[in-house]
Amino acid sequence: MASLLHIDSSLYPGGLSASRAVTDAFRKAWEEQHPDGTVIYRDLAAAPVPHIGIDAHAAAFAAPADRTPEQSAAFAVRMTLIEEFERADAILIGAPMYNFTIPSTLKAWLDNVILPGRTTGEAPSAEGTPVTVVASRGGSYAPGTPREGFEFVQNYLEAVLKGSLGLEPDFIVPELTMAPRNAAMSDLVPLYEASRERAFADAATKAKALAERLAR
Amino acid sequence: MASLLHIDSSLYPGGLSASRAVTDAFRKAWEEQHPDGTVIYRDLAAAPVPHIGIDAHAAAFAAPADRTPEQSAAFAVRMTLIEEFERADAILIGAPMYNFTIPSTLKAWLDNVILPGRTTGEAPSAEGTPVTVVASRGGSYAPGTPREGFEFVQNYLEAVLKGSLGLEPDFIVPELTMAPRNAAMSDLVPLYEASRERAFADAATKAKALAERLAR
Repeated sequence: MASLLHIDSSLYPGGLSASRAVTDAFRKAWEEQHPDGTVIYRDLAAAPVPHIGIDAHAAAFAAPADRTPEQSAAFAVRMTLIEEFERADAILIGAPMYNFTIPSTLKAWLDNVILPGRTTGEAPSAEGTPVTVVASRGGSYAPGTPREGFEFVQNYLEAVLKGSLGLEPDFIVPELTMAPRNAAMSDLVPLYEASRERAFADAATKAKALAERLAR
Repeated sequence: MASLLHIDSSLYPGGLSASRAVTDAFRKAWEEQHPDGTVIYRDLAAAPVPHIGIDAHAAAFAAPADRTPEQSAAFAVRMTLIEEFERADAILIGAPMYNFTIPSTLKAWLDNVILPGRTTGEAPSAEGTPVTVVASRGGSYAPGTPREGFEFVQNYLEAVLKGSLGLEPDFIVPELTMAPRNAAMSDLVPLYEASRERAFADAATKAKALAERLAR
């Protein structure tokens, strides 16, 4: 039974969020392929995980018996997130761009999950797990655009998901999502619509291809 | 009377934190130049600010009279942070690298402070304010090193502090801070020590130069 870990981090609820619309489409396509599979869902906006703090950090370097009660409690939260992450056959992350990079809630999740000697290091525990990132953004930061140098979502997540966690990241990038709501961007509405259509098509295609690959 | 906004975000308390040691040195040198000045201190690890959520976000686009009580409360938190930020003649930020980028607590602060039409946009309210960033990191991510492509602190903060908030960022980069605690890095201890010495010297010099510049 294949399992999907689905993480959203948009501050907008469903219906208003560009990233949630596409992660939902991916998830539905995945569920069609895996009617008996499981999906674990984490909504980091509705229920943020704690920032990494001194207790959660120090606990990782102490033997269980030597941990303070505060360290044990903080580490238990981390381990819940890590075990969810490790159990997943595939991971889906909604990562809207806020102020040129990922939401603080998604960074907090990453800081909890990245544990030296376990999820990162010489043999990352989830090495090779495919992760699909829906990296929506209000403008365009594509190569060749004036804002190219302000893109710190896709390049950052590629570095940390692959370089630290050993995952296999794949990106869907719905862009110009502010165009319909910003008069100064009205010329860009057709490009926004094309990007949106492509994102939904990609979500369906990629979810199906991934399901087939995992079934082999 | 000159005022300094001093922000720390290391999860380590003072004494164990490389970034706090250097922001403290900067602050002390600043205070020597401004014995009658004020310092506003925010410790984002000890007292995190909320993640930006739908209420704090939506409130920015609603007239005050149209805001729900939840929106008004979330916006009041944002305005406290924004007014602190705007009142500062100079800003000092401790920004350790966690998993290749800034701590989630610092991202949450930025997401609250960056307010379109006020702190960012055509005439950013704090435009030209000098900001000194102490960007400490456990390894080296300097140009030419193998980890160069994993640096998402200095390049990100340069983009957002300058490109979005209109500040004038300046960086102090204590690197290789893990060297004394990691046997595999023992060869790098002399480089770490040199970097540390340079960071403290820079903190003193830059604080003094800034104080003189602001006094003109």
